[in-house]
Amino acid sequence: MAIELKGLTKRSEDYSKWYNELVVKADLAEQADVRGCMVIKPYGYAIWEKMQRVLDDMFKETGVQNAYFPLLIPKSFLSREAEHVEGFAKECAVVTHYRLKTNETHDGVIVDPEAKLEEELIVRPTSETIIWNTYKNWIHSYRDLPVLCNQWCNVMRWEMRTRLFLRTSEFLWQEGHTAHATREEAEARAKQMLKVYADFAERYMAVPVVQGVKSETERFAGALDTYTIEAMMQDGKALQSGTSHFLGQNFGKAFDVQFTDKDGKLDYAWATSWGVSTRLMGALIMTHSDDNGLVLPPALAPIQVVIVPIYKGADQLEAINNKIQPLIDKFKAMGISVKYDNADNKRPGFKFADYELKGVPVRLVMGGRDLENNTVEVMRRDTLEKETVSFDGIETYVQNLLDEIQKNIFKKAKDFRDAHIYECDDYEEFKQKVKNGGFFLCHWDGTAETEAKIKADTQATIRCVPYMFEQTEGVDMVSGKPSKCRVLIARSY
Amino acid sequence: MAIELKGLTKRSEDYSKWYNELVVKADLAEQADVRGCMVIKPYGYAIWEKMQRVLDDMFKETGVQNAYFPLLIPKSFLSREAEHVEGFAKECAVVTHYRLKTNETHDGVIVDPEAKLEEELIVRPTSETIIWNTYKNWIHSYRDLPVLCNQWCNVMRWEMRTRLFLRTSEFLWQEGHTAHATREEAEARAKQMLKVYADFAERYMAVPVVQGVKSETERFAGALDTYTIEAMMQDGKALQSGTSHFLGQNFGKAFDVQFTDKDGKLDYAWATSWGVSTRLMGALIMTHSDDNGLVLPPALAPIQVVIVPIYKGADQLEAINNKIQPLIDKFKAMGISVKYDNADNKRPGFKFADYELKGVPVRLVMGGRDLENNTVEVMRRDTLEKETVSFDGIETYVQNLLDEIQKNIFKKAKDFRDAHIYECDDYEEFKQKVKNGGFFLCHWDGTAETEAKIKADTQATIRCVPYMFEQTEGVDMVSGKPSKCRVLIARSY
Repeated sequence: MAIELKGLTKRSEDYSKWYNELVVKADLAEQADVRGCMVIKPYGYAIWEKMQRVLDDMFKETGVQNAYFPLLIPKSFLSREAEHVEGFAKECAVVTHYRLKTNETHDGVIVDPEAKLEEELIVRPTSETIIWNTYKNWIHSYRDLPVLCNQWCNVMRWEMRTRLFLRTSEFLWQEGHTAHATREEAEARAKQMLKVYADFAERYMAVPVVQGVKSETERFAGALDTYTIEAMMQDGKALQSGTSHFLGQNFGKAFDVQFTDKDGKLDYAWATSWGVSTRLMGALIMTHSDDNGLVLPPALAPIQVVIVPIYKGADQLEAINNKIQPLIDKFKAMGISVKYDNADNKRPGFKFADYELKGVPVRLVMGGRDLENNTVEVMRRDTLEKETVSFDGIETYVQNLLDEIQKNIFKKAKDFRDAHIYECDDYEEFKQKVKNGGFFLCHWDGTAETEAKIKADTQATIRCVPYMFEQTEGVDMVSGKPSKCRVLIARSY
Repeated sequence: MAIELKGLTKRSEDYSKWYNELVVKADLAEQADVRGCMVIKPYGYAIWEKMQRVLDDMFKETGVQNAYFPLLIPKSFLSREAEHVEGFAKECAVVTHYRLKTNETHDGVIVDPEAKLEEELIVRPTSETIIWNTYKNWIHSYRDLPVLCNQWCNVMRWEMRTRLFLRTSEFLWQEGHTAHATREEAEARAKQMLKVYADFAERYMAVPVVQGVKSETERFAGALDTYTIEAMMQDGKALQSGTSHFLGQNFGKAFDVQFTDKDGKLDYAWATSWGVSTRLMGALIMTHSDDNGLVLPPALAPIQVVIVPIYKGADQLEAINNKIQPLIDKFKAMGISVKYDNADNKRPGFKFADYELKGVPVRLVMGGRDLENNTVEVMRRDTLEKETVSFDGIETYVQNLLDEIQKNIFKKAKDFRDAHIYECDDYEEFKQKVKNGGFFLCHWDGTAETEAKIKADTQATIRCVPYMFEQTEGVDMVSGKPSKCRVLIARSY
């Protein structure tokens, strides 16, 4: 697991290559020997676990409960909701047999042709179908509603071009599936969960997001409305970071989930679904990191503070150890995760580069002179600034610094994002500028034709109708037809 | 989701039926419409989450880190370790295709014959192969060791006869996979993790377990030694509740995981693996529950205390609400999970039966007279005993009661278990007694022949060579040959 620090490509040279290298060099993930799949390594998984813990608490605050539904979905379930199957059932892993047997030469195994399934099973690409098939048995009366379930699980979509975290055939995610007695309640839930995602992205990941609603073309297969959060990466491209869908009664009807309402009338249940995935790891990495490696927000960093001693001889090391131990105890009591790296098989310079690469927010270094002077050197990862401060009260100093870093990287990302949002009313200008990235606020006539033309000409897509801007009527920059509002257009991951 | 309380079969009538009904009626899990798979419902999943949280912390205390490896395993990987494939590769879900397409009548989907995989992929039944294939890239020097990874995930084994939690085609588990530089270190780790499982079972699940080592016949496919914890259910049958395997260098050799040791010599890495699954839910349910429903250990109960008001009119309800609210705040501050059920659409009697069925350890009831007298009625689920106590200091009373219940149900289970462990030296006597359940400590000559005969005659198997008893030499009760120790024999789930 030797780390090659020198090899990291600069962002300005090749942003895409920089990302691919960084994910591997920082020990976050690697390609598996299974097509399109990844291995999430312990350091990467530790970040994902922190995300999960925070999100899970946020979901539960809103009344959501976790549950678990089967991995495999009977093929026929997928066809029940017509639009859904068009969008989802195509690129899937299909289970056709349930047994292997030893081959004739007794040196391997083959699929037993006699163990063919009557109906093929699909590895879930998303679970609306199997879950609504289950809800049918749970929901009979308005008293059974709402049902607010979430599951943390793996899903598979057979992707042709994959990139670690951003697009992999198997990925980890959560998928919430709720059932409601009224349209209003379901719509409110879909919007509420988008708000949870936006809060999480901004407060914990320090990633500013644009909230909005997707155009019909970009909607989830089977949804009446898809709400989205869109983040801007350092190359100006958009990364869709979480979506929440108002599904109307489509799945209620497809799986015959009817309930008796307060007036004794039968109606179909209203649905939402919403999810975020390990793709968030990609957003986190690409928003903050630099040419030295990861920059992690303190709120999600597995190690928030690393302490490295620089010493001559065992006596000095012991003196530093004795000085540092009470500080470690204080950090732990404050809920600050700390690593004291006094391993003697690596040089301090190597350690410094390694922890920079891994994005540890704060580094403390104590050497012989610090010991004499009762000081410690503090380095903050976001700006790489160093200063020497008094050892007394260092725990409070570090705690404040962690808060400061969390705020600073959010501000930096937001300033960058805001500096690259352009209002644009001229299609020629748009076509030129969009090549260099950025979010474009443009009037749109609401037709799929215009949307398709923009995509064909520029590869950019309508990311959403954003909530965050005051909207006025205008003229579509492509067709010249009237437009009700500006939409957010960008090239995207 | 109406609850039918009256329908629960008594344990004495049909223990197996009682279990099957209880799992469904207590809202823990249900059969999915996918052969052999289950849906884990929110209440059941909440218990599993508590188990996960505790176990995960215990693993991390020993230096283990979480990671994630692919769901799908190339078929050829399974054949690399000869014994492993014999034991595992047979009853598996096999992915052969990666695409569906719309059928000719446009009302369904079919498997696209053109999207056939070159090599079939297996849904993991366990992950030794894919993980050791990955470790090959991580391990080069003794400095890279040990590697201590765990993953929480789903696995599939195509089971013919399934029972909720006990044996399902898909189940949730954790699988730890460690790599070491020496045999001694690997063996110590395998034993250490068994100890973690035993501690968890006894301290949190309140389930007493026998720790021991499996006979060769019962070993994990590919292991040199399998350590196990065996629990006794109320019908006297054994439930294997967790296993830890010392795998020697089998996987190191099969996947060519070599490292340079301190002396510069190449050697193969030594391996362990260890896992517990949602089967633990079965052990938990069957050890403690009674004819009224679940009995949950306070340490794992999603709701530790439920409070039910009995009132006449809105004024009295408001008075009780006002009295109870500060108590709820106190419980929460103490880390005690509490539910205040003042819903007015269910009768108190219905609520009582429901929370009994769900195994909530402590129930508090406050009525009009309690309000006058400053008292509250306390019911403990384990003994169903009720008493009326002063409201002052009730939070401390309840906290102590929760501790008392945790201890009491462990003691009850242990007393039951110990009363059903028999030393037996006569095979005829054994054959008679084993029909009624219980653990039998018998001398065994160490041969697979004797083991097979016992199984054929009685369906009982050697569960383990237990650690917990003083061992002496003796005579095999079946063959009459010399025996080095007594083994634990029982019928099992």
